[in-house]
Amino acid sequence: MSGWVVVAGLGPGADHLVTPEVRAALDEATDVVGYIPYVARVAPRKGLTLHPSDNRVEVERARLALDLAESGRRVVVVSSGDPGVFAMASALFEALEDRTVMPEIRILPGITAMLAAAARIGAPLGHDFCTINLSDNLKPWALIERRLRLAAEADFAMAFYNPRSKARPEGFARALNILRECCGPDRLISFARAVSTPDEVIQTTTLSKALPEMADMRTVVILGNSATRRAGSWIYTPRSVP
Amino acid sequence: MSGWVVVAGLGPGADHLVTPEVRAALDEATDVVGYIPYVARVAPRKGLTLHPSDNRVEVERARLALDLAESGRRVVVVSSGDPGVFAMASALFEALEDRTVMPEIRILPGITAMLAAAARIGAPLGHDFCTINLSDNLKPWALIERRLRLAAEADFAMAFYNPRSKARPEGFARALNILRECCGPDRLISFARAVSTPDEVIQTTTLSKALPEMADMRTVVILGNSATRRAGSWIYTPRSVP
Repeated sequence: MSGWVVVAGLGPGADHLVTPEVRAALDEATDVVGYIPYVARVAPRKGLTLHPSDNRVEVERARLALDLAESGRRVVVVSSGDPGVFAMASALFEALEDRTVMPEIRILPGITAMLAAAARIGAPLGHDFCTINLSDNLKPWALIERRLRLAAEADFAMAFYNPRSKARPEGFARALNILRECCGPDRLISFARAVSTPDEVIQTTTLSKALPEMADMRTVVILGNSATRRAGSWIYTPRSVP
Repeated sequence: MSGWVVVAGLGPGADHLVTPEVRAALDEATDVVGYIPYVARVAPRKGLTLHPSDNRVEVERARLALDLAESGRRVVVVSSGDPGVFAMASALFEALEDRTVMPEIRILPGITAMLAAAARIGAPLGHDFCTINLSDNLKPWALIERRLRLAAEADFAMAFYNPRSKARPEGFARALNILRECCGPDRLISFARAVSTPDEVIQTTTLSKALPEMADMRTVVILGNSATRRAGSWIYTPRSVP
């Protein structure tokens, strides 16, 4: 029996947001590889070996998955959300470049955090938007700043992943200052923490009232465009620009 | 019994990409409202009334859903992909602004076309990216052009929805010319048609070889950023920028 690697998105947290395609792959797997809290979302069963690993070892984790597949195992690499959005799919392809043998690989999409968050908020991403990872672990801060200014100039709505962590407490405050400068004080901004889990908290305010402390590593932040508005308790971005 | 409206994303086409949350809402519904081909994806059953409608009547369709809910019906408005990405959620909130009574509303996320396509291609959206609707039905073409130029300047990967239709055959050719000018001839571009359906076709080429005819209304187009590369038959965007 030949092995394979599936990189699967578990969605933002709730079981009812895991696709049947991902569920089927987990049912066939002999091994599950991933960051500790994501592997913890997979129910243990006989014949399934769990390989939880720490954060920031994505390429090593991908190599483990490829090694296991080469030895004939059926491996699911689990990501939160969607595996192609700031998650394990790119890391797997980076690890693949060293290899001569290519095992069978499939990437299975999942509900990414910004879309689960947008659904709770209303429809803030209902018009053209951009998606930016605010962590400067893997890119220079100057590039993030440049992208924020250009995205504001394009009047994109914006979704921000990894806005703030204990190791990087300053960046998000700087990002908010840039956004206030470029988008003005009244622009709507939503903070969606731990969407679809029991810890879920959603709050919307304006840039003038937004505080860095409203975000942590479990938060996705969504900034409206210049037309984003309220309809009752909902926030949405109209489809049309006159 | 009080009525409700759910706006649900059916994903790109395959049943195994419909979330259990959406499936449960469809099971509870008395009415399904939506564009003809999306309503056709819901299995008829006793006690369920289907209300298919034509394209470009989104706000009328949303009003019908709200009227039905006010009369006590349990209504699912179906969108392809995710309802918050160029789909019915914004239209529902637009229709809501006329109303004094607000029925219970829930938005249920789905797998949007660009993420299903990205998964088939590899991980082209594995770094910061933007998502642009290339139809100028609801916005001026000049705004699309401006956004393409700014997105290229920001070195975003880009996902394009509604690239080309019979009614708008020219726009996508113009968009390709702008992208060639801003991103150069060697930038990778992928065309993903009817992802996850029996009609699926995925092809990747470079901007110099891309032809407008490679896209139609069932195609999502993904342009890499300056670092997007091949790994065997896969296309991915590295996570890091040196």
